[in-house]
Amino acid sequence: MNSHNKVSQLLRIDHPIIQAPMLGVTTPNMVAAISNEGGLGSLPVGGLSPEKTYQLIQETKSKCSKPFSVNLFAHDIPVSTDTDEFNQMQDFLETVCLEFHIPFERKATTDLTFYSYEDQVDILINENIPIVSFTFGMMNADVIDRFKRQGTVLIGTATCVDEAKVLEVCGVDAVVVQGIEAGGHRGSFLIEKPLPQVGLLSLLPHIVDTVSIPVIAAGGLFDRRTIQATFSLGAQAVQLGSIFITADESAACEAYKEAVLNSDETSTELTRAFSGRWARGIRNAFMERMKSSGIPIPYYTYQNGLTAPLRAYGQTHDLVDLISLWAGQSAFRSKRGKSKDIFLSLVQSLQR
Amino acid sequence: MNSHNKVSQLLRIDHPIIQAPMLGVTTPNMVAAISNEGGLGSLPVGGLSPEKTYQLIQETKSKCSKPFSVNLFAHDIPVSTDTDEFNQMQDFLETVCLEFHIPFERKATTDLTFYSYEDQVDILINENIPIVSFTFGMMNADVIDRFKRQGTVLIGTATCVDEAKVLEVCGVDAVVVQGIEAGGHRGSFLIEKPLPQVGLLSLLPHIVDTVSIPVIAAGGLFDRRTIQATFSLGAQAVQLGSIFITADESAACEAYKEAVLNSDETSTELTRAFSGRWARGIRNAFMERMKSSGIPIPYYTYQNGLTAPLRAYGQTHDLVDLISLWAGQSAFRSKRGKSKDIFLSLVQSLQR
Repeated sequence: MNSHNKVSQLLRIDHPIIQAPMLGVTTPNMVAAISNEGGLGSLPVGGLSPEKTYQLIQETKSKCSKPFSVNLFAHDIPVSTDTDEFNQMQDFLETVCLEFHIPFERKATTDLTFYSYEDQVDILINENIPIVSFTFGMMNADVIDRFKRQGTVLIGTATCVDEAKVLEVCGVDAVVVQGIEAGGHRGSFLIEKPLPQVGLLSLLPHIVDTVSIPVIAAGGLFDRRTIQATFSLGAQAVQLGSIFITADESAACEAYKEAVLNSDETSTELTRAFSGRWARGIRNAFMERMKSSGIPIPYYTYQNGLTAPLRAYGQTHDLVDLISLWAGQSAFRSKRGKSKDIFLSLVQSLQR
Repeated sequence: MNSHNKVSQLLRIDHPIIQAPMLGVTTPNMVAAISNEGGLGSLPVGGLSPEKTYQLIQETKSKCSKPFSVNLFAHDIPVSTDTDEFNQMQDFLETVCLEFHIPFERKATTDLTFYSYEDQVDILINENIPIVSFTFGMMNADVIDRFKRQGTVLIGTATCVDEAKVLEVCGVDAVVVQGIEAGGHRGSFLIEKPLPQVGLLSLLPHIVDTVSIPVIAAGGLFDRRTIQATFSLGAQAVQLGSIFITADESAACEAYKEAVLNSDETSTELTRAFSGRWARGIRNAFMERMKSSGIPIPYYTYQNGLTAPLRAYGQTHDLVDLISLWAGQSAFRSKRGKSKDIFLSLVQSLQR
């Protein structure tokens, strides 16, 4: 795969396939499985505590003989939220919890603890993480500078041309172009604009024509054809997430995996219901009820904090209607089995 | 282009490129320019009177030495609408008209005349139109049967896998797969589902894997790379619309053309403001005002009828804020110049 040499050298991989960081789904075992086979595994630690971050990195290192990337949420943590909105949302969540016989604990806005990517940088530097990817924004100049001095490869996330330009100007080494097909959170961060919702087939060549750094395609990819299509559009690597949701090493509960396998290309939609940030997931009762309630949704991270117990309960009890079923528009093409085998079958299809 | 022989034979074209039917933009001159060069020009007549339909076909025939297609709106005309909604919308439109010093004529719901595709079939049969494409639904069995006996090639439009299946089962010869990137009206017609909003890169292979009829890719295409990408995903032909909006033969007013050339990949969004049906256009004051008003929008065809005078006035007076600026997510890649030259440069790029 000569045409992918540049990005493959940069990322120290044999195959230009990145496993997308999926918080709540990706495990150290999954990351290790991909990296050990010559792809790039991505460990999601966005919003986690420094302790948890350290622990996950150690666990991944213990299973992994090759480089892997660590993924951060590069946004500013809001310092406060509207108390009325916050409490109105708690009323809504309390009703849902009552219905499902889930204990509900009322909180004050100050009860929630949020961690910034800035709290995690020391650990990543000390652990000498070779590749750091991030989404939700652009890291601040000091952090970029620290990583640069360390020789860390930096990968940002863009959902429109202007975001890709910002990332390039700020010195990022490569950019993940996230098409509207992608599952999970939108990486969008130029919030003065309406949320970009651009199909990858349109977005990818526009960004390829605008920036000089390597471009990594993400969203809706699931096989040789879709991967090759992005290469012919100028991508140098691809990032796939949904295809690994149903893997053995996935942390998704069985109800989530079943929902993914039973979905179709129209089953997902963008929602702010679970986290306060736009994300693509399979429609379920929670999303529909939030929508029909019409109540304002506190912004991430507050909404994310408020729904965390509910989502955790849904995940533990296999309650498909309470889980954020993040999935892309090709997620139903996911396969059961080992992450390694799913990855290797993609690699082999590209070599045909 | 051997791989495209099947669909090229079916459509009697030399190059697997179809100019998309764009009501209000496409002219007989544009259709003739594309067909005469060996592509397929598409004459939009959806919702027009039989007289106007006949006249446009005659005009196109007089300029065209090769086959062209005629495009219909294959939906059922609603028999009535909610009078309160209809009048509330007139209040809104009257305010807008006052502001722009446009005369406003109040109407009763029964004042509006709508034409069905069934009113146009006789003309298409009599005129021996070789290729009939349609959107917004599936034509009824009698009409399909009449076209079949005539030897007419039928092309339907799908925005999800289920719609493609319906079209194939009903005997359509080929299907246009409309990605979310596409400008203008969504062809969606399985209205019990939420509006499909699937990126072409995801949607196309899913439909290619499901139906046996030839698949035509549409949405966000603008150059060799994007066209080749759809071929590698299994499309046998492509349909491009936005790239011709700024052509010499386009009926778009100068303000519309300027808006297209000044847009970017994030400038458009889906709206029901102009016609009552979902369509992708460049954001403008009319769309924004309708959204912030929050009033219910009567379904197409009523809303379309109500806004028609306003849109016509905007088009005549170059008022960019009153025009439905239908455009896709790659529309800003449109070129000025002759439709023929725009088409031939696409053809040449594919032969490189």
